[in-house]
Amino acid sequence: MMKRIGFIGLGSMGMPMAQNLMARGFDVRGYDVRAENIEALGGGQAESAAKAAAGTDALVLMVVNAAQAESVLLTDGALEALPPGGTVILMATCAPGAVEALAAKVEAAGRNFIDAPVSGGVAGARAATLTIMAAAPKETFESARALFDALGDKVFHVGERPGQGATVKTVNQLLCGVHIAAAAEAFALASKVGVDLNILLEIMSGSSASSWMLKDRGPRMLEADPVVTSAIDIFVKDLGIVLEAGRDMKAALPLAALAHQLFLATSGRGDGQADDSQVIRAYHSMNGTSPPA
Amino acid sequence: MMKRIGFIGLGSMGMPMAQNLMARGFDVRGYDVRAENIEALGGGQAESAAKAAAGTDALVLMVVNAAQAESVLLTDGALEALPPGGTVILMATCAPGAVEALAAKVEAAGRNFIDAPVSGGVAGARAATLTIMAAAPKETFESARALFDALGDKVFHVGERPGQGATVKTVNQLLCGVHIAAAAEAFALASKVGVDLNILLEIMSGSSASSWMLKDRGPRMLEADPVVTSAIDIFVKDLGIVLEAGRDMKAALPLAALAHQLFLATSGRGDGQADDSQVIRAYHSMNGTSPPA
Repeated sequence: MMKRIGFIGLGSMGMPMAQNLMARGFDVRGYDVRAENIEALGGGQAESAAKAAAGTDALVLMVVNAAQAESVLLTDGALEALPPGGTVILMATCAPGAVEALAAKVEAAGRNFIDAPVSGGVAGARAATLTIMAAAPKETFESARALFDALGDKVFHVGERPGQGATVKTVNQLLCGVHIAAAAEAFALASKVGVDLNILLEIMSGSSASSWMLKDRGPRMLEADPVVTSAIDIFVKDLGIVLEAGRDMKAALPLAALAHQLFLATSGRGDGQADDSQVIRAYHSMNGTSPPA
Repeated sequence: MMKRIGFIGLGSMGMPMAQNLMARGFDVRGYDVRAENIEALGGGQAESAAKAAAGTDALVLMVVNAAQAESVLLTDGALEALPPGGTVILMATCAPGAVEALAAKVEAAGRNFIDAPVSGGVAGARAATLTIMAAAPKETFESARALFDALGDKVFHVGERPGQGATVKTVNQLLCGVHIAAAAEAFALASKVGVDLNILLEIMSGSSASSWMLKDRGPRMLEADPVVTSAIDIFVKDLGIVLEAGRDMKAALPLAALAHQLFLATSGRGDGQADDSQVIRAYHSMNGTSPPA
């Protein structure tokens, strides 16, 4: 069983995840490019990615993207530092093709690889209620079961091949991104007509028009400057990964492509760090409507 | 209070609605262009639209569209037959502009008008669990409260002006149509990659990617030839109404426009009467994938 865990990437997701592992008795050594994040972890602190990996059973990567994961493993020496037979667990959202390529390098070096992206956001990371979509040979997956159970409450073994977890996460993000943009389009139409948007939200939330995103982001679409729970630029990135997967597979994804344009336009106006509900600003700009006062 | 009700349009939605009114003690006289539907109603049968309206307190219209509603009221004489001070309750899905125009004619003739479209489908019509989005002056709305309560369990007074109910329903259909198409796009991508679609559906249904439509239509997207609960051509019509509302209001609705194209293409292939989950066939056709065997 895995007990000693190296954890790289202590951002808004990674920090509470690493702390949940510590709370469940795992021996965690954390590393982040920002020294203040390493200090904030409490517990075991590593001076480098390689030192976080050295002597551990598994190395969890909660970095920004596949390029960072590759840099940590190969350039920074974390893969070499991880004992042979150890397991790399990539939990960041990455394109399926990039995950496959990285898995091949890890396995060629005699380490195991689990492709295990998550959904549920910062709230899920804090509450240990993440959805985890893991792809790996059955035995490798089972060896990490206790670790996953410490991080999430919906743990799925989606396949044996690396890249299949990333694919499921990609499909997840396709739906999330399109649903946020669709909610924005709906409110944009309603605000043009002059219907009470709060009543509209209440009705839609209880009807066949409902979505998880409508209920979560909808209220913030009715605010002019809501708190940021997840930024526009996250969906610029994630829908970019969705489209990359579509290109790799030669699958046309017209709704995802259109939703991506709306997030891009919002970012292009300078709102990339705004809450992702503010993709509605793309509609306000297009249609000449105003956000609520 | 309304007791005597004329009911026009005894189709898959109208029939159970009229029967629910009868079961709750309303004195219903039903009419439909198909004689067999009138017979199937049981209860009060009318030989014409005008005879259904004569001597009643309210005339419910559950016809196909605004043109049919206008034809019933003006050409077939139902408006004249409805006693002055009576109320026309339009529950079909119509474009907001068309509803406003019709309401003006009804009110000019000294009758009341309630713009009261519904959502919840045939299942909701049967179970009397429809969502009802009613727009009318408060007093007129209250006079129909008991009737609405006999048909649905989520009754909203969304505004005083006719057209506002239709707008809310339009926004509802925008979300429903885009959500169905998005679910199809998601499964189309996943089927290209070779992920287990049943596991995918389970994960998405419990994650932030979830929507009412994904959970309802998703299982039928995984069948090659599912039972029809609502046809492709219904969304060809309803998203057409959404886009008509957008044109009237000068509001760009790019996601709705794209979703409409996908339903149109599916209908164009000859699948207009297939279950609306089969908009996934547009993706199979585009991407060269196959429906499940």
